[in-house]
Amino acid sequence: MTKNPIKTYAIKSSIADADRRARSGHCGGVLWFTGLPSAGKSTLAIELERILFERGYSVYVLDGDNLRMGLNSDLGYNHADRTENVRRVGQVAALFADAGIIAISAFISPYRADRFQARCAAEDTFREVYVKADIETCEKRDPKGLYRRARLGEISDFTGISAPYEVPESPDFVVDTVIDDISTCVKKLARYVTDTFGSVEDH
Amino acid sequence: MTKNPIKTYAIKSSIADADRRARSGHCGGVLWFTGLPSAGKSTLAIELERILFERGYSVYVLDGDNLRMGLNSDLGYNHADRTENVRRVGQVAALFADAGIIAISAFISPYRADRFQARCAAEDTFREVYVKADIETCEKRDPKGLYRRARLGEISDFTGISAPYEVPESPDFVVDTVIDDISTCVKKLARYVTDTFGSVEDH
Repeated sequence: MTKNPIKTYAIKSSIADADRRARSGHCGGVLWFTGLPSAGKSTLAIELERILFERGYSVYVLDGDNLRMGLNSDLGYNHADRTENVRRVGQVAALFADAGIIAISAFISPYRADRFQARCAAEDTFREVYVKADIETCEKRDPKGLYRRARLGEISDFTGISAPYEVPESPDFVVDTVIDDISTCVKKLARYVTDTFGSVEDH
Repeated sequence: MTKNPIKTYAIKSSIADADRRARSGHCGGVLWFTGLPSAGKSTLAIELERILFERGYSVYVLDGDNLRMGLNSDLGYNHADRTENVRRVGQVAALFADAGIIAISAFISPYRADRFQARCAAEDTFREVYVKADIETCEKRDPKGLYRRARLGEISDFTGISAPYEVPESPDFVVDTVIDDISTCVKKLARYVTDTFGSVEDH
């Protein structure tokens, strides 16, 4: 026995999930937004984050464009890199959920298999949200002109044009940004969060 | 102008750092533990997390062994892989700090340049904590028998034996686990956190 019997094994936090929940009033979890470019994922994520925060939730947005500047700055847009991109984000989102936070992930995440891997990382706290909009509408929105550039062949591997998007077969929740405006979508999402992860107002 | 003028640009959270701080009573930040295997990083991280949580802090441990099962499961222990390991964790810790959480990172992180990269990711919220213990003491502790196996040549690239450890030249804080017992180290660390990131008791 040494003076300090320090362990270096793979560790388990001394804070139980129930203790984190008792603090915040809600479970940690992953709300995984998937959809075509310009479907509205980031806009909805940011608006939902603001509303949930104002209501007292611990919440954080993981956004595709932002993470590609940091954690995933070494990755491109071919199939293998997209898979690795989503794998890493799935693991990070699971860490946030484990920390008792609602992680809102806004990523195209075009492949079913990759989304399933993200689900496995966060286990039973994962919810897939399909941000639904048809390609024609998304292409009309095109705020950065990316669809136009993809049509011109200036961008390769562009989801919906020159790379596939695999529509979710059984998403946990769907918001349709063609039928509903942003405000309506966010209200529906906030209600879903309350039903799924708990209401801080009951806290 | 489409019906839903949705943007997909790289986004900025609508929640200001000051709003997150007003909620929790403290800043988000990164407490980056570095030191030899068996220096006490994980043990101190877990104990510190518990004490800070009980006091009301939002806190989460990112542990080397645990992350190697998930985010960094594709990486080994050669120099390039260790650098990538620390790069990713530095980015994840910075995300937690941005979310208003105190991320306690417990990683050997043997190279100065890699730790500097992690500092850059979290910018002014990063604090390097040197968990100090001499190699002889660490080798005596050796709870998993890894030093013994490294001496026998059964493990290659083992920090302190067959791979270098670059001691921090100007760490922000030092705890010495040879001189002080765990409880004393944790008390010192908790005081440092209060002084650095704010006291929730004043909140």
